[in-house]
Amino acid sequence: MSSKPAIGFCGLGAMGFGMATHLVKSGYPVSGFDVYAPTLEKFNAARGTPAMTLTESAKNKNFYVCMVATAQQAESALFSNEDGKKEGVVYHLPQGAVLLLCSTVPSAYAKDVERKLGEVKRGDIHFIDCPVSGGAIRAADGTLSIMAGGSPNALEKGKWLLEELSAPKKLFIVEGGVGAGSNMKMVHQVLAAIQILAVSEAFGFAARLGLDAKDVRKKVLGSEGWSWMFENRSVRTLTEDYFPGASALTIILKDVGIITSMSRLLNFPTPLCTIAEQVYLSGVDRGWGPNDDAGMVRLWTSEPVSNITPTLSPEEISAKLNIVVSLLSGIHLCAAAESIAFAKHVGLPLPQLYELAVEAAGGSALFKEAGAEMISLLDEGKEGKGIAVFGERLKEAVDEAQRIRCPLYLGGGALNLLLMAGGKTANLASLLKLFSQA
Amino acid sequence: MSSKPAIGFCGLGAMGFGMATHLVKSGYPVSGFDVYAPTLEKFNAARGTPAMTLTESAKNKNFYVCMVATAQQAESALFSNEDGKKEGVVYHLPQGAVLLLCSTVPSAYAKDVERKLGEVKRGDIHFIDCPVSGGAIRAADGTLSIMAGGSPNALEKGKWLLEELSAPKKLFIVEGGVGAGSNMKMVHQVLAAIQILAVSEAFGFAARLGLDAKDVRKKVLGSEGWSWMFENRSVRTLTEDYFPGASALTIILKDVGIITSMSRLLNFPTPLCTIAEQVYLSGVDRGWGPNDDAGMVRLWTSEPVSNITPTLSPEEISAKLNIVVSLLSGIHLCAAAESIAFAKHVGLPLPQLYELAVEAAGGSALFKEAGAEMISLLDEGKEGKGIAVFGERLKEAVDEAQRIRCPLYLGGGALNLLLMAGGKTANLASLLKLFSQA
Repeated sequence: MSSKPAIGFCGLGAMGFGMATHLVKSGYPVSGFDVYAPTLEKFNAARGTPAMTLTESAKNKNFYVCMVATAQQAESALFSNEDGKKEGVVYHLPQGAVLLLCSTVPSAYAKDVERKLGEVKRGDIHFIDCPVSGGAIRAADGTLSIMAGGSPNALEKGKWLLEELSAPKKLFIVEGGVGAGSNMKMVHQVLAAIQILAVSEAFGFAARLGLDAKDVRKKVLGSEGWSWMFENRSVRTLTEDYFPGASALTIILKDVGIITSMSRLLNFPTPLCTIAEQVYLSGVDRGWGPNDDAGMVRLWTSEPVSNITPTLSPEEISAKLNIVVSLLSGIHLCAAAESIAFAKHVGLPLPQLYELAVEAAGGSALFKEAGAEMISLLDEGKEGKGIAVFGERLKEAVDEAQRIRCPLYLGGGALNLLLMAGGKTANLASLLKLFSQA
Repeated sequence: MSSKPAIGFCGLGAMGFGMATHLVKSGYPVSGFDVYAPTLEKFNAARGTPAMTLTESAKNKNFYVCMVATAQQAESALFSNEDGKKEGVVYHLPQGAVLLLCSTVPSAYAKDVERKLGEVKRGDIHFIDCPVSGGAIRAADGTLSIMAGGSPNALEKGKWLLEELSAPKKLFIVEGGVGAGSNMKMVHQVLAAIQILAVSEAFGFAARLGLDAKDVRKKVLGSEGWSWMFENRSVRTLTEDYFPGASALTIILKDVGIITSMSRLLNFPTPLCTIAEQVYLSGVDRGWGPNDDAGMVRLWTSEPVSNITPTLSPEEISAKLNIVVSLLSGIHLCAAAESIAFAKHVGLPLPQLYELAVEAAGGSALFKEAGAEMISLLDEGKEGKGIAVFGERLKEAVDEAQRIRCPLYLGGGALNLLLMAGGKTANLASLLKLFSQA
């Protein structure tokens, strides 16, 4: 008999399976449900307790984790009441149970859950809105980053479980109640969504410039064009590890869809995420949805980017590598502004976003440097340093791309933001101001 | 013997051949050069006088028309001096000749020509920067629209020839000297470049909504989503007349390239043209460069759009047709702002742009209505009417597109401009202001 409390779980996908089995390994009895039967067998083999129904997974569980893929799936798992059968989890949790929603959902949906709990007279449930970040490996290690919002009471009761699933210092309790966790994840994903596509745009551009992808990777990693996503995805770009790779295009497409739909709901502009979303959709149109998102580079070149043997002189290689860095730097600067301005708009604590993102998947050299200054500007109403140099360098990249007829979706979009921010007189404050008319 | 003056001509492509043979029909002796020999035979058959060299086409011609495709070709035709051979036109024109450059080129290049004429000691030549618009049929009819800039003296001497080539009331003498004609053409092409892609985006979206393209055409033509480009291109969309159709993708790509390169040179943002350019480039990547630009709809659907038999109810059809109109209206509103603001930035007379574009290929219902108000605003510093309704309706289109996973490059871009302009508080002035920080 375990002295540890029983935990209910639904959604045993790549992330959920890791999280649930980590809890099992840590000595908790976990009753896990998934709609896909083979997963339940696998869960059984990993010493979890498969639940045949949602109801079964929820009964007598004072703690419950919902880790399905989308808000639609969460709605069904939590509140399913077809033909009055009340199969949803919330109808079966014991009085005062703690319910963690770890899926990435719009904050508006997290707030909906809170409201609906009241409607179905389960206001006693301690609901925590706590999306996670970090990928399947960290999920299985219990070292995720978690962004959690909820009532003080719910957070107090659920904190130990959040700590079980997260790394030390990677549990971020976000002020603002239910919805705040999802908002924090959303603004982090602004960085992720833009910077993932930027990896492909940079490698695609570089390939058309005749650069060896290995040279590009080496150059970017040691430059201000660095991003966590570039370092992470470029491993797969160099080996064409897209089938399925590690992170399907449809996943980042779902996340960017949350960003742009919240953007419309809140009348807040997200110009680079919008561009990224359209380009991701064009990838889905080509049948690449299940492939790794690094495979978006195939929009630019059907040739493997690591097959290119440069015929350029060392000087030319050096000059062209520099303009690839210029492209990434300009995009990342604007991504930082888009993320930070959105965080401000939804009322998130900016220093916490900074602390979280700078060492997570949204991190970039530009976010680290200019992001810190942007946040202090927004607090203090200062002008901020001039950023004309980013525009000028981005122009070089866009000029060259135009010459060789290479589309630069994000590069073109970022340059226009820098021009709208004032071009030669642009500074960090004028860039942020583009987002603050709404 | 003709009593009419002899005219030299180079560049007998689709446009130039029509213009040159129109002059022949009007009784002028025309000496025409082209690098493509079969064209010269055709010109001969049309009673033109083929010139075997540029030199021959220019000698003893007091009037000369250059109608090559690009600035690069113009540079070669006018100033070619390889190995000191001085084959270029400017070395052979008689003293005080009138030289018309009708190609669409960056205004910076037109000014370069003026400067270089001085450098090669041909400041005596009366140079007119006079790009044209209207297509091959109107070229052959002598009913083009012409936007002409030059010194008063040059314009006085060349006016009769410009009149021979243009329709009554379609000759626009643009104040500002050499460069002003090219600038006027450029800002007109801002409308053209955006609105051509909008035709494909609208039909592609409509096809994915399950709408019959014939219904779409009918609806749009009678709505505020109307544009000259939609009316013109949709004929080819409905019949898949893309091979080669009437206007190659590479032509509008060249024009949009002039816009975005001048945009960079002048530090002026052109966000929708930039998006359009990237999408056109992606069409070129697919091998569609020589096809009609209306064929860009194939980015959205490989199925002919006129093959769709709707399975929707009349109410659904009506609702979906309305969101297609919303898409076009939102894009055209922002296109009007981008064009008018750019015209203001380069110092063009806005009422003249309005007069020219409203009845030309750049015309749209929104340009006609909101464009007039934008121009008076820029003159008088007023706020202008609220445009939140365009944003709200565009959101419906973008919401639905997201739901069915349909990329809307321009629709997404336009919505973000409306959100940056203030969303619910956006007005025409705040939209124009996005372009005026530079």
